Amino acid sequence: MTKFNYSKRVPADGTDAVGTILKAAADPQIISFAGGLPAPELFPVKEMKEAVDRVFAKHGQEAMQYGAAKGVTALRKLIQKHVKDKEDVDAELENVLVTTGSEQVLDLVGKAFVDPGDTVLVEQPTYLCALDVFKTYGANFAGVEMDEQGMKMDALEEALKSHPNTKLIYTVPNFQNPTGRTMALERRKQLAELAAKYDVYVLEDNPYGEIRFAGQHVPAVKSFDQTGHVFYMSTFSKTLAPGFRLGWLVADEDVVNKLTVLKQSADLHTDNLAQYAVVEFLQNNDLDAHVKEISDLYGKRKQLMVDGIKKYFPAGVKYTDPEGGMFLWVEVPGVDDTVALFKECLKHNVAFVPGDPFFAGAAQPGTFRLNYSNAQEDKITAGMKQLGAALQDAVAK
Amino acid sequence: MTKFNYSKRVPADGTDAVGTILKAAADPQIISFAGGLPAPELFPVKEMKEAVDRVFAKHGQEAMQYGAAKGVTALRKLIQKHVKDKEDVDAELENVLVTTGSEQVLDLVGKAFVDPGDTVLVEQPTYLCALDVFKTYGANFAGVEMDEQGMKMDALEEALKSHPNTKLIYTVPNFQNPTGRTMALERRKQLAELAAKYDVYVLEDNPYGEIRFAGQHVPAVKSFDQTGHVFYMSTFSKTLAPGFRLGWLVADEDVVNKLTVLKQSADLHTDNLAQYAVVEFLQNNDLDAHVKEISDLYGKRKQLMVDGIKKYFPAGVKYTDPEGGMFLWVEVPGVDDTVALFKECLKHNVAFVPGDPFFAGAAQPGTFRLNYSNAQEDKITAGMKQLGAALQDAVAK
Repeated sequence: MTKFNYSKRVPADGTDAVGTILKAAADPQIISFAGGLPAPELFPVKEMKEAVDRVFAKHGQEAMQYGAAKGVTALRKLIQKHVKDKEDVDAELENVLVTTGSEQVLDLVGKAFVDPGDTVLVEQPTYLCALDVFKTYGANFAGVEMDEQGMKMDALEEALKSHPNTKLIYTVPNFQNPTGRTMALERRKQLAELAAKYDVYVLEDNPYGEIRFAGQHVPAVKSFDQTGHVFYMSTFSKTLAPGFRLGWLVADEDVVNKLTVLKQSADLHTDNLAQYAVVEFLQNNDLDAHVKEISDLYGKRKQLMVDGIKKYFPAGVKYTDPEGGMFLWVEVPGVDDTVALFKECLKHNVAFVPGDPFFAGAAQPGTFRLNYSNAQEDKITAGMKQLGAALQDAVAK
Repeated sequence: MTKFNYSKRVPADGTDAVGTILKAAADPQIISFAGGLPAPELFPVKEMKEAVDRVFAKHGQEAMQYGAAKGVTALRKLIQKHVKDKEDVDAELENVLVTTGSEQVLDLVGKAFVDPGDTVLVEQPTYLCALDVFKTYGANFAGVEMDEQGMKMDALEEALKSHPNTKLIYTVPNFQNPTGRTMALERRKQLAELAAKYDVYVLEDNPYGEIRFAGQHVPAVKSFDQTGHVFYMSTFSKTLAPGFRLGWLVADEDVVNKLTVLKQSADLHTDNLAQYAVVEFLQNNDLDAHVKEISDLYGKRKQLMVDGIKKYFPAGVKYTDPEGGMFLWVEVPGVDDTVALFKECLKHNVAFVPGDPFFAGAAQPGTFRLNYSNAQEDKITAGMKQLGAALQDAVAK
């Protein structure tokens, strides 16, 4: 058998911890809170079908032909308006790049900015796929402590001082994956200022911001950016549907132009049919009303999950109580081996994602992420009871 | 204004020669043979609409949800059958990866295999976007001489000997972009053998192979691969439509698994709706009959272009006469500055892509690429007359 001589960008075998976990959790016997999927029963299937029908009727040939690397202009204009309306971000058309899912923004920013040995500062814990992407470009990481108000700015400035080769700060300020925490307004202003002061870039990843079921909206970090150091990214994956792979970047025109060149080398452009279809959808449907429906359902499911924690979990367990998004975060004191805990829970036919892969450095033991968006209400109630029993067993040991 | 501190992976400003050319050629006054687009009038718009309708009716939620990084299983099975039927390539399901256009295969192979300073051997001239992609990963290039039978195998072996750090050989064996040349059968066998002998990889890029309007089919290099050193890639962009961005890789299972991990970091997975739609299209339509229609039209247009060359071009001009694909290649002896020639032709309201960017090293002056797939017949006739006049002027100077 040929032994292939891979670049060191390729992760070593056996590092796909999460894949292994999701596979274990896929057993139909198991109630899984491990995934991170939106509720498919709310996908606007009929309305998207109508939108696609209109695309084929109006400009089918154009939708099927090669398109522009920056994206369909009509969609870029709608995104431009959207970030102004929702996040108070002033953008010109030249500041908007359509991408193949928001994952592609991570990849393009990593490719364009992160050289081997550069430091990327991340929330502790953070979105694990961001770690994977930046790692392929040779990033070192330093984790920045969080509290209930998000990334701590004094800890961030310390990290900036002690890592002078920092290139990028990655943050999910709203209903963070995995913790569900939201960064406070004042910290967002400070973050934009610190980025300018230390001449590093902020990648502000906001997939969940619109899925708010409690509390008040907080404007984007990007809305406080005076210098172009903040790059803002979002997606239609949580508000509409992820299957189309549509994300976007809003950044300084020079950054957008450079990333467009790299995007051409990555996939030439994003699926035209999907872009035109979303344009039609947005022009003929009330996205806000649809997002309200999603938020209401997720809020209800989150509450069931929190009720389950209160009712069934051992005393002393800590948890976040998010005002939006799809995830909450649990800390079980006294647990040393989270993966062993995970296996114990599997025996009780319930699953989550152990906290370990969300940490850039040393993980906090006994932590895990629960997803509430993709489980029916009866499953949440039953699953939390099982999970509670499993945790009681584990803590008693 | 902020000066952004990019990685050296980002190309310097002003290197987008082709973008500049395509922009110049976009003037509606100009008859352009510069682009590389399929004929949109042959896109099966009605049939694709029906296919999408069936997807929404049968499994709309699934098509809109997150999907598998390797692609929709039904599509991978159809690709597996397709490469067997068309190219005599034996593949298991595990050998097939669906990608976001075939451009993504270039990117993933570059990322997985090409380290800074590695040599990539390419045909001289070669597909310019492949140069762009591998360059972002730090590749050095060496060009391998071609003749009418494609890449010369003695020249290739010389290059392998003189560049011991070669990692990859990139080839477009059928109706090559930009020359339209096809690699002879015997050379394909030799290529597979040389790759195994020198333990380097062949990336066989076959977007055009099915668009044959003359001569006999030649089996893929991959069909002669005994050792897994050949990676085969193709796309639906030329046989169906490019707007969906659907390509694929067929390679050793280990390579597919490693590239799947990198694909997850690039865009998680390829558009599900597009994948399901193409499955429905293939199950309910005769793709071969459709490809025959495309080939017939392109053959007719190629012939008109060759007729124009014979009638209007100065004596001594050489050209290829492809048996398929979308491009032919012209060499005008005595021309030193191809870009000046291009500008002269623009004055005659006709455009092409100058040969320079297709060369990894020193370009052959007086060469250019003509596209015949995307111009109506009357435009070809008129454009070739204008181009002939421009060349007569240039040669006379």
